[in-house]
Amino acid sequence: MELDFVKWLRDQGGLSEDSRLEVGIGDDAALIRLDDPRLVVTTDLLVDGVHFLTSEHPPEQIGQKAMAVNLSDLAAMGSRPVGAVLSLAIPEEDSENRDSLEFAKRLVTGMLPYAREFDCPIIGGDTNRTAGPLIISITAFGKPASEKPLLRSGAQIDDIVLVTGELGGSLLGSHLDFRPRVQEAIQLAETGMIHAAMDITDGLSLDLVRMTKASGCGAVIEQAAVPVSAAAKEMAQTSGRSPLDHALSDGEDFELLLTVSKQTHEGWLQKSPCDCQLIPIGRIVEHGGLSLESPMGEIRPLQPKGYEH
Amino acid sequence: MELDFVKWLRDQGGLSEDSRLEVGIGDDAALIRLDDPRLVVTTDLLVDGVHFLTSEHPPEQIGQKAMAVNLSDLAAMGSRPVGAVLSLAIPEEDSENRDSLEFAKRLVTGMLPYAREFDCPIIGGDTNRTAGPLIISITAFGKPASEKPLLRSGAQIDDIVLVTGELGGSLLGSHLDFRPRVQEAIQLAETGMIHAAMDITDGLSLDLVRMTKASGCGAVIEQAAVPVSAAAKEMAQTSGRSPLDHALSDGEDFELLLTVSKQTHEGWLQKSPCDCQLIPIGRIVEHGGLSLESPMGEIRPLQPKGYEH
Repeated sequence: MELDFVKWLRDQGGLSEDSRLEVGIGDDAALIRLDDPRLVVTTDLLVDGVHFLTSEHPPEQIGQKAMAVNLSDLAAMGSRPVGAVLSLAIPEEDSENRDSLEFAKRLVTGMLPYAREFDCPIIGGDTNRTAGPLIISITAFGKPASEKPLLRSGAQIDDIVLVTGELGGSLLGSHLDFRPRVQEAIQLAETGMIHAAMDITDGLSLDLVRMTKASGCGAVIEQAAVPVSAAAKEMAQTSGRSPLDHALSDGEDFELLLTVSKQTHEGWLQKSPCDCQLIPIGRIVEHGGLSLESPMGEIRPLQPKGYEH
Repeated sequence: MELDFVKWLRDQGGLSEDSRLEVGIGDDAALIRLDDPRLVVTTDLLVDGVHFLTSEHPPEQIGQKAMAVNLSDLAAMGSRPVGAVLSLAIPEEDSENRDSLEFAKRLVTGMLPYAREFDCPIIGGDTNRTAGPLIISITAFGKPASEKPLLRSGAQIDDIVLVTGELGGSLLGSHLDFRPRVQEAIQLAETGMIHAAMDITDGLSLDLVRMTKASGCGAVIEQAAVPVSAAAKEMAQTSGRSPLDHALSDGEDFELLLTVSKQTHEGWLQKSPCDCQLIPIGRIVEHGGLSLESPMGEIRPLQPKGYEH
């Protein structure tokens, strides 16, 4: 990393005072002391023009998203964050003529609030110049909050499918400015009752199919139960697509997608295990694939759609 | 990651059979079981046009370098590799009209030999498209091979400064095709006698100054002792710079730079603790800064030069 940037980063937020961090930014590598032998690792690379627009979005908001998508992946595994490393490829020529070091500082300034709130200090990194668009690569570490990590592959027949919030229309803003479900995922993991979990990144229908494929089963979504966001309704006014279609396939909702047994779900109707709503949207069935059940009870196959990387 | 690529990657080298890996590529994150509470983390981001040239270098060689620079950082900390995650930003339009998935596979094919040899499986990753140059971001994990990790900050006055090989002229090829000093670093760490260590990435003079600054001391390099590579001599024939200057400041040598006490060094003259040569090139002194001692014993200040990121 550039020396000025390392110095600035070291001065931010007392990260080097983290008692777990034995060697912080500045040596060849960081050294952190863990209190769990199980290490969860996730990595996300974000590209200007794909995941954000430096021409439109303030760097603080871009930085916040980069940190949040990694925290959302840790949440999807039911993990407590431990730390993250950050690599940046910063454009040699900035179309806005911005000072690139200043720009990098603003990016990181946007990362720090969630890094602090969710106890995920930036413990190392690398910065480079590029002739292309800005690229942000973050690798985040965590430890499972429970004996069993939350996986995609545990869904069981007759499970209830739950989501933690409204879906669709993220392009209107929430894809940039969302709160990763870290605390809620820890609370849910601690119940020990979650059969399968992931976060919705590429669209409910596409992600649910990934979950059912990993679990060797199928799923029925109840059309009337899908929580359609106001943004999905707003987009539908001009997109030529229905609000439901936006909710099923827009992606970047970053809500948790879970399955639990019927009994667990019924118990949770009395007393919620976490700080957010848990909205039942369907059920796990034996036969593969995805179906949509109309309010009249008619079930037809649903072609999964979403953002394919 | 793109599904085809994930599938291909999972099929390579039996990585998912690694007994430490509880959850591999394909879920929201990887889960690995560690046998040491201390985690060493390093990350390096490589950019086409800066660290390699896709127009000139075969993708296998580029991939090998990307893996090797991360392994070299783990070696610099005296660590045994544990695993790595890989993120790629792949150009939308390849000037060579190459199939981008095929290109990514060739990159990873180049990473796998060192990943296997040094027990550093690729346990996860992310792939994206970019309108800019190819970018490879690797984060590698390790565990210290000894009680004390090897740090830059431990050099002591009167220590002998050692390097593990010849320096300079890496641009003629060795910057791409080098063998990271992983085994040697483990052997050296296990002696418990290393005071300070790092790998030479930006040039001997620049990196040695970083070590002495971190240690609060200075260093004298003996001009006649610097192991000048054949490549440094070859470059000097046309560069207008001396072979010594190339050896002092070219960078990307990826040799280890170490300090040990005089007594340790004398003992090692009889019996080397590792599989490579350990070449004494100077000594640690009290007063800050870097000096060069001529064969006549004349000592003059040396301005550190090298590759500044």
